[in-house]
Amino acid sequence: MKARVEISLRPGVLDPEAQTIERSLASLGFEGVEHVRRLKVIELDLAHQDRAAAEKAVEAMCERLLANPVIETYSISIDA
Amino acid sequence: MKARVEISLRPGVLDPEAQTIERSLASLGFEGVEHVRRLKVIELDLAHQDRAAAEKAVEAMCERLLANPVIETYSISIDA
Repeated sequence: MKARVEISLRPGVLDPEAQTIERSLASLGFEGVEHVRRLKVIELDLAHQDRAAAEKAVEAMCERLLANPVIETYSISIDA
Repeated sequence: MKARVEISLRPGVLDPEAQTIERSLASLGFEGVEHVRRLKVIELDLAHQDRAAAEKAVEAMCERLLANPVIETYSISIDA
């Protein structure tokens, strides 16, 4: 079973690296780039056979390690 | 127009951070995690009106800045 976790910064949390990308694209002459956002994606190959159990486990992984709930939000998708 | 660039390491390129995540999950007592992969996603809000022009511009952005073609591959999706 495969799980995919998408982690992004909460609205209002500054992303200096995204801002640097935005400025660098402009300095390289790329026009029309209005905003840049970065996300982290973590893909997990799981031995779980049960989808609900897998989702619950990945939720716990996010809460304990993969995401920082203070500044990040995450979404989980499971491919059986 | 929104563009989404997914950047991942080429097969065979080691990802120490993903390996650290894998070990940390095991040490936290999470079982059944067979493999961990990390991807970077960059979302761009573009002023471009033409889809083909936007795709071409994002391709050039990937080649020049967003991705390292030696160790990374990327895929681009455009939402008009």
